[in-house]
Order: sequence, then structure tokens, then C-alpha cells
Amino acid sequence: MTSTGCLTFLTDFGLEDGFVAACHGVAARIAPATRIIDITHLVPPGDVRRGAAVLAQTVSSMPPSVHVAVVDPGVGTTRRPIALQARDGVLVGPDNGLLSWAADALGGIVTAFALTNEKLWNHPVSSTFHGRDIFMPVAAHVASGTAPAQAGTQISPADLVTLAPPTNRMRNGEAEGEVLSIDRFGNVQLSIPSAATAELGIILGSTMLIRCNRHEIVAPYLPTFGSAGPGELIAFTDSADLISLAVRGGSAAEKLSLPPGARVRIAANLAS
Amino acid sequence: MTSTGCLTFLTDFGLEDGFVAACHGVAARIAPATRIIDITHLVPPGDVRRGAAVLAQTVSSMPPSVHVAVVDPGVGTTRRPIALQARDGVLVGPDNGLLSWAADALGGIVTAFALTNEKLWNHPVSSTFHGRDIFMPVAAHVASGTAPAQAGTQISPADLVTLAPPTNRMRNGEAEGEVLSIDRFGNVQLSIPSAATAELGIILGSTMLIRCNRHEIVAPYLPTFGSAGPGELIAFTDSADLISLAVRGGSAAEKLSLPPGARVRIAANLAS
Amino acid sequence: MTSTGCLTFLTDFGLEDGFVAACHGVAARIAPATRIIDITHLVPPGDVRRGAAVLAQTVSSMPPSVHVAVVDPGVGTTRRPIALQARDGVLVGPDNGLLSWAADALGGIVTAFALTNEKLWNHPVSSTFHGRDIFMPVAAHVASGTAPAQAGTQISPADLVTLAPPTNRMRNGEAEGEVLSIDRFGNVQLSIPSAATAELGIILGSTMLIRCNRHEIVAPYLPTFGSAGPGELIAFTDSADLISLAVRGGSAAEKLSLPPGARVRIAANLAS
Repeated sequence: MTSTGCLTFLTDFGLEDGFVAACHGVAARIAPATRIIDITHLVPPGDVRRGAAVLAQTVSSMPPSVHVAVVDPGVGTTRRPIALQARDGVLVGPDNGLLSWAADALGGIVTAFALTNEKLWNHPVSSTFHGRDIFMPVAAHVASGTAPAQAGTQISPADLVTLAPPTNRMRNGEAEGEVLSIDRFGNVQLSIPSAATAELGIILGSTMLIRCNRHEIVAPYLPTFGSAGPGELIAFTDSADLISLAVRGGSAAEKLSLPPGARVRIAANLAS
Repeated sequence: MTSTGCLTFLTDFGLEDGFVAACHGVAARIAPATRIIDITHLVPPGDVRRGAAVLAQTVSSMPPSVHVAVVDPGVGTTRRPIALQARDGVLVGPDNGLLSWAADALGGIVTAFALTNEKLWNHPVSSTFHGRDIFMPVAAHVASGTAPAQAGTQISPADLVTLAPPTNRMRNGEAEGEVLSIDRFGNVQLSIPSAATAELGIILGSTMLIRCNRHEIVAPYLPTFGSAGPGELIAFTDSADLISLAVRGGSAAEKLSLPPGARVRIAANLAS
Repeated sequence: MTSTGCLTFLTDFGLEDGFVAACHGVAARIAPATRIIDITHLVPPGDVRRGAAVLAQTVSSMPPSVHVAVVDPGVGTTRRPIALQARDGVLVGPDNGLLSWAADALGGIVTAFALTNEKLWNHPVSSTFHGRDIFMPVAAHVASGTAPAQAGTQISPADLVTLAPPTNRMRNGEAEGEVLSIDRFGNVQLSIPSAATAELGIILGSTMLIRCNRHEIVAPYLPTFGSAGPGELIAFTDSADLISLAVRGGSAAEKLSLPPGARVRIAANLAS
């Protein structure tokens, strides 16, 4: 067995406590040579959709890895701990939908396993900290060369919990999506792929209509927010190839009062 | 001398400045092959008890390590920089009690040293940044194989500054403790070990009385907060084997108005 | 070619998203054996001067490194991506002044390059995430042994964008500076080197006059804030060899209402 190289780690544990470090320590004991890349630990507590979105958008930048993700409000209940062998990596976490979008980003699920092999766990297993006691030790073993099949019983991908995909549809000459995430800069990422602009006839340098919160706003579609004027609202294709809204030197999320999940529609601005 | 493998690092330095990184850099220069695991750098400034609690609860998850901890409001005064050889690891930091609970968690102090060997320090030594100039360079040398005895003069463990242990006593059919820490989820960790429940006749699935802030609350004692109803207050045994209070999908600390240090008593609910 | 050993990484990306991790992943794919030291990712969005100050004060603690810094409000515009070979390290980032003070701290620029060699980039290159697609991959190649000259066209250091240096002048028996940074503890770092105290006749243990916000305050000049009384304002020489103001157990920045950039003058207290 060869090592898969890296572990990545995403949670809602925060950075004030020792939770993330305890998992790093457990991994370092099992797989001392394995690099751990922290994706983020600031997913809002219990926000599975947000965790799933950040994970899915980040895994494709990683080297071959075992990706551990723990946003797990159901810890200790009957939800299953799982490992997913995807085409381009392995995912380990709770079966609550958190891993589903990332599995797609990694080329789709090849095989799935319920983590039932207690020999790979950290004992005694606590009821509330499966990141330290189940997910990370199993992942560290897999990163060290243990086959995912050794981690437990094979299960059908069709039986996995999935998240409803973000809204993304085309109708009446509009693309409709939702706010997928808001980043540190207040940029609003929509669940509308950049390909929709071609379909709608919106070209770089032209303007688009943005409909949200019962308002209609006209904004230029530019290659980058760096080329906007201060305070100007613009649309651009972001680094995940999705349409995003930005305000140069400000927050588009604040300007438009758009929280995650809000509906947004875009269309070509025929008046221009 | 063989390497002890890892360095762990806990401070109140925060993450906005370059302080943590400067210490990492100093360590990387002295011990380039040594992994550093950051425990947390968000201990509230100067809060030695909080730092001691997080450190003590995390070290047991670590591989054999030199643990560096710096919460040091007395930096530059006569408080001594020390290294403690414990049974299961080495601790390096200021002699202000910060290391004392972790030393217990690591099996107790075997030998203690005042860091007086200036050859291991980073020169010129600043008056205000001993993390960079004394603690981390000494720890990196020890992690690279230098014996702790080389770091300075042996001192008596009896002379070390210690922290008063958290309240934990049994009387009149109640276990009395204090709020040891509040985590990111608003879970309230009490300084009452889970063993107290057996002594009090509180079994999983039964309810307990919680007395705090002149109120008396009845809460079920469950294996995990995942099995509680939304908004419900429950008690559970946490991952450090202590009694903790949680509100599913909310903050027990807010619901009960409990800050760190507040007194809490628990007892069996005989009315149930 | 030999490896330069380490990558360091400073940005305004924040820690809530996957941006920092995506850059780590790209680096790990190119330079799997290279350690990455995160300096900070909490530079206020777009605050180039703050980023430049933290970078300049931290690089000297690092082993030989390629330092990647991205505070880049002009991403996607005509500002150039650059690499600077300094005497004691390599700097990679946008040509907006961010790297200029660190280049001085690393002994000055030897040669400068515009990053025009697209073979070293991550493709497809997004318009808004040059950290992931240009700066980090180029830096990882350089850290792995690629000569900076391979990264692009040599340019004249005289053509680089620079930041106005912080105020630092001596007149009428006063040293005048500005607030360079405020750290987590509320300590106020002035752009006045400690050498100014000798010139002004301010000796350790004496008091100095501090003039700011139209007020005049007398404060002792002490070796360390650890020796001050609780709540007392003091001046000291900080770990970057600059004059700083602190309040023991409190925030000097709050007490004096001093934001970054505010003017401050110090002088000997002749009345004492």
C-alpha cells in the first residue's frame, strides 16, 4: 500500500479550543509523515451546507488526499460515519450530506463504506468527539496506506444522505440561483455557473440585470473587481467559475442585503 | 539523543499579528524537521487559567512532544522561564501556573529546570517577546535532542507556582464544581468528573438537578447532545470525561448566563 | 539548484473560506517537501500598509524562505505580479508596495522580476485569485529550486511601486512618528526606533512626554510592561526595536484613542 500523501481537514470546531489540535495530534501519532492542510475550522456551528460548499470548492486544489470533514450536529446519534472513495481522493466524515458536493468535485463516488472497523478508532471513543476518536484516526490510517475497504462495511452510494443541490435553473431568459456563500470581502457567490452568461447573451464589458429582494439592479460584468470604480457594484466570474457580485472596497452582501440562500436572478440588460 | 518528535504551541498571541509565525520561524531554523502543532493562540490575553485548562485537555492527544505554552502577563519580570520534564512529555513556558495542570495530565513532573542556559536562546533577547527569544528556541533544541537538563538549573517542583485547582467537591448529596470552559458551541464544561454521577446515583437517561445563579433546572443526562431536542438543555459526559451542559442548536452558556468560573452544583433529581 | 527551504505566507484572505487552503494545496502539489509557515491571513481586507508592516517585522525570524504575500485590491488589473530576490530571501506578490518594507528588512533588493513565465502558473488562471494561480505556484517552484530569473522578465527595482515610509523624524527635541500597528493586546507600536530615546536623553526608568490627539501624557520608560502597575500607561522598546506604548492589563490604543496612522511625538520629561 502506498500513502495517499495528504490529509485535509475542515470543521466547525473553531480556533479557540484545543479540538482541532487534538485531531492533529491523533493524526500525527498514526501517520507521522503525513502533511495536514487545514481548509477551515470556522464553518458556522452545524452549518452543513456551508461546510459542503467550502469543501467542494477547495478539494480540487489539493494534491491526492484523504479529506476529513466534520460538521456534525448529529454526533452520537444513528447517523453513520462514512468513507467515500471518489475518483480523485477519499472523503471521511458523517453521513449527513457534508461530503456529497465534494464527492462530485472529486469525480464522483466509486465505493462507499460505513466506518465499522473499531480497530482503526481512538479508544475510549467519546460520544461527542468523533472527529478525534473516529474520523481522524480512520483517515490517518487510510492516508498511511490502509485501504478504505478495511475501514468498514461497503454500503450503496444510493443510500447516502445528500444535500439538495443549490438552485440553478434557466427560465424566461433568466438564470436563477441562490447565494452560495459570502466571503470575507463581502463578495456574493451565486450558484450560477459562468457558462450561463453565454447562454443569456451577457458578454464581458456589457451590463446585466440582477433581481433580488424585489429590486432590480444594473451592474457591469467585468473580468475582475480590480477594474471597478470604488463603491461600484459589479458581476464577475470567480475563481470557482461561478458568477459573483462584488463592490470594490466594500461589501456586496451588505449593499444588497443578501444572506446565504437568498434567491437571485440575472439576465442580459436589453436596455443597454 | 533522539528527537522527541513534535512541538505543540499554545499562546494568547492571537492570529492578527506575526507573533506566532515568528516563533514558528525560530523553531524551523533550529529544528527544521520537527512538526509544530498549534493548539490555540486565542487564549484571552493574560488568562492563565483558561490557557492551563485547554493545554491540560489537549496534551494527552499528542504524540511525544515538547509543549510550549506562553500566556505570560509577567513577561520581563522576575517570574522564571521553566522546562518541566513530565512522565509523558516536556513542557516549556513561564513559571506562573500555566503548565501545572498539563504536567499532571502528562503523568506528573519528574524534574524541573529554570531556563538559565542563554546559549539556547535567540539573541538579542527582547524584554517582551520571550516566546520568540527564550521559550521556543529552548523547546526546539529539546525537540531536536538536547536534554532538558542542558537548558538550565534544576529546581524543586515544590517551588513552582501552581494554580488553585478548579472546585470539585462532593457534599450533602451534591457535586459542586465551576465552569471550567465554554467552547465555541456554547457548551459549558464543568469541573465535575463523570465519575461523580455514579456516586450521586445519576444514570444515563435519568434527569439531574442543576443549581446555578440561584436557579434550579432539571435536565436529562444523555449520552450525547445529538440525541436532544432542538433548544433542549441536557447534561452529558464530554470528550475530556467531565460533565458538560449543552443546548441542541443553541448555547447553554447563554441560556444559563454562566461565565467561566461560575459555581454550579448537580444532584440526582429525586422527584423524577 | 538547491531548495530554499521554506515558504511563508501572508494575506488578507481571512480564515472562514478555503482560499488559504487552496494555496497550500497548490504549493503541496508543486513542492511536497516544503514547509509553509503562515504569517497571518487576518490583514484587514486591502490594507497594504498593515500587510507590509507585519511582513517586514516577521521575515527576519524566518529561515531562508520564499515569502509569499497577497494583499491585492488591484488583482486582475495592470499591476504587475513580481518576485524580488533580496539579500536574505525571495519575496513574491503584487507590485503595489506590499513587499517593499520586507525587502529592506531582508537586506535590500538584489534583482527584481515581473512574473511573466506562464509555465510556472496554475492553469486555467482566474482573474481574481492570483494567490492560488500565480503567486503561490511561482513561489513553490522557486522554493523547489527554480531560479527567480526563470519566473519572468528582469525589471528595474527603481520602477517598483513603493509605500511611503512611516513618519520618523527628529525636530525641536522631539521624535515624531506614527502608529505603525496595534497588536492584540492593544499595545501601540510607534514608527520611532528605540535609538531615538538615547538621542532625546530618555533613559530606562525615567519618564517621557507623549503628545498625541492634542494631549500630553507623562509615562515611564520601562524595560517591559510586566513591571508596570495594573492600568498604568508605559513606554517600552518592543520586540521589533521600536518604541511602543502599553497599559498593563488593558489597551493603550483604547486609552489614548489612537488608530493606526495617528501622529505621536515623544520627548524627555524635563520636569521630572
